[in-house]
Amino acid sequence: MTRPDTARQIHLASRPDGWPEQENFRFTEVPLPEPEDGEVLVRNHFMSVDPYMRGRMNDVKSYVPPFRLDEPLEGGAVGEVVASRSDRHKIGDMVLHNAGWRDWTVLPGKAARVVDTAAAPASAYLGALGLTGLTAYAGLTKVAGFREGDVVFVSGAAGAVGSLVGQIAKALGASRVIGSAGSAEKVAKLLDYGFDAAFNYHDGPVHRQLRDAAPDGIDVYFDNVGGDHLEAAIGAMNRGGRIALCGAISQYNETEPSPAPRNLALAIGKELTLRGFIVRSYNQYAAEFAELMGRWLQEGAVRFEETVVTGLDNAPQAFIDLMRGANTGKMLVDLR
Amino acid sequence: MTRPDTARQIHLASRPDGWPEQENFRFTEVPLPEPEDGEVLVRNHFMSVDPYMRGRMNDVKSYVPPFRLDEPLEGGAVGEVVASRSDRHKIGDMVLHNAGWRDWTVLPGKAARVVDTAAAPASAYLGALGLTGLTAYAGLTKVAGFREGDVVFVSGAAGAVGSLVGQIAKALGASRVIGSAGSAEKVAKLLDYGFDAAFNYHDGPVHRQLRDAAPDGIDVYFDNVGGDHLEAAIGAMNRGGRIALCGAISQYNETEPSPAPRNLALAIGKELTLRGFIVRSYNQYAAEFAELMGRWLQEGAVRFEETVVTGLDNAPQAFIDLMRGANTGKMLVDLR
Repeated sequence: MTRPDTARQIHLASRPDGWPEQENFRFTEVPLPEPEDGEVLVRNHFMSVDPYMRGRMNDVKSYVPPFRLDEPLEGGAVGEVVASRSDRHKIGDMVLHNAGWRDWTVLPGKAARVVDTAAAPASAYLGALGLTGLTAYAGLTKVAGFREGDVVFVSGAAGAVGSLVGQIAKALGASRVIGSAGSAEKVAKLLDYGFDAAFNYHDGPVHRQLRDAAPDGIDVYFDNVGGDHLEAAIGAMNRGGRIALCGAISQYNETEPSPAPRNLALAIGKELTLRGFIVRSYNQYAAEFAELMGRWLQEGAVRFEETVVTGLDNAPQAFIDLMRGANTGKMLVDLR
Repeated sequence: MTRPDTARQIHLASRPDGWPEQENFRFTEVPLPEPEDGEVLVRNHFMSVDPYMRGRMNDVKSYVPPFRLDEPLEGGAVGEVVASRSDRHKIGDMVLHNAGWRDWTVLPGKAARVVDTAAAPASAYLGALGLTGLTAYAGLTKVAGFREGDVVFVSGAAGAVGSLVGQIAKALGASRVIGSAGSAEKVAKLLDYGFDAAFNYHDGPVHRQLRDAAPDGIDVYFDNVGGDHLEAAIGAMNRGGRIALCGAISQYNETEPSPAPRNLALAIGKELTLRGFIVRSYNQYAAEFAELMGRWLQEGAVRFEETVVTGLDNAPQAFIDLMRGANTGKMLVDLR
């Protein structure tokens, strides 16, 4: 592998006001140094685009600091070690790290975790076997306290996290799993994954479609969407129901606050629990998750899909399209 | 005590549409039978009016069935046993039961719990030592998972439940307790109770007054109000904060759903938990609560107040006034 003298990076040129646009991103070329002691030189193979990145583009205090203007964006990526001055890495190792949005990079060895490409393709460590999978697993089982026999509803169900939530719920003995998504093709995909029911939220009010799909109510709701989906779920919840608040993609690009849910007071009489979470608070379950997910993937109980866009040049558009739901499963950019 | 031949009862004449009015109530006179085997004849001394009763006046499925039209209303009351054919009750016993909204009644003995009037006045068993107190205690400690050092905010803080929540939080080691109420007199009362800060929500936006009162944020919010209070609390919550959803009195008489909270998506990054509850799910803590509350009352760590209206004739107005916040502490009707 010949190394270039420069690396290409994508910087945040300006903060989006509402929906992100191409002009919010800027391509730059920077010198690619030699790795120093303890460092590795990495050629990225895949980078991840994720909904949570939208929040980091705003200049607001949150659980992760905002991206800085005129500095490279960050995010999950997998790449190949091309040169190593780290005693934990050898040339040819595939590593998982957080320096996405660029083609080549030099990293401290401790920031680059070697992944087992014999067990799964490298890209899976950005999705089903990575934080995406842990988000689905921990959100369902630890945050929402899933119990065998529960009726589970998941929104954004054809997305990277949602598609895993539904399949994990089935694997763990849900009595019924319902998903919502934004197209007929995605709905068909959910039924193919083994969801018991699925609907296209463009086809009618969510609360009505959910009631039809879950005539006996729901016990767990895994929320990737917020807004009308959350309101519908609160309305459909059975007594003692639990909601894992994972994302609110319907609101990320809105400049006005969402007036939903307007029915939160129902949570009193129904004794509902709503709990927000971020995956890094559940790292202690990573080993438990990896073992279970490895088995489910092997058995075919859980399948995953990737929507792959080619080339760093197309990474901003991949992110923009992700916000509009263009992906099925995990959205990745192939940087090779 | 001479018994009358008839008892007076208040029936639900019609279901309120929005705010309750006198015309929703009807006084009736019914024959007062002799107690049969296992029954007691009771002369009520005090009846309770509570915000939750508003929900039962609607014809909607909830955790308690709706009141029926043209039948007597129900609710907590204490009264004196005047005749007994129950081997667990003797004449002169003071009993706690659910047949409020009437002056005299005949009850099955098992529906009438004898209370200890040597330990506390009978009316206290409708308030601080009763379900009101248990609601405050269980909501704060079991639902919201209060921990020593927490900053606690409670709305409706001069009400029966709220005034106890704040004082219990102080007794259990809260680092700061903030209350909101609807008048300057109530705010003064809260400071007298030992709240660290209190504000009148009529004086300005709740979110601004709360931020001023809790510059370092809040860890626990005990919600009696819903709407803008809940939205403000979500905004002020620290990471990992917990909200006990006990009531939403700001919404009970609204005919349109509330557009607040519009910021629930903040619960994701802040990892907040919102949990609705009804007190009867926490009966297992009644003994623990009674012991602690008995001690706090004796030590003066917790004080309670009653707003007493005289006469069954005034019970509907007492309820109507309760919905408007006319009370400080527990609202009772003296039926003697």
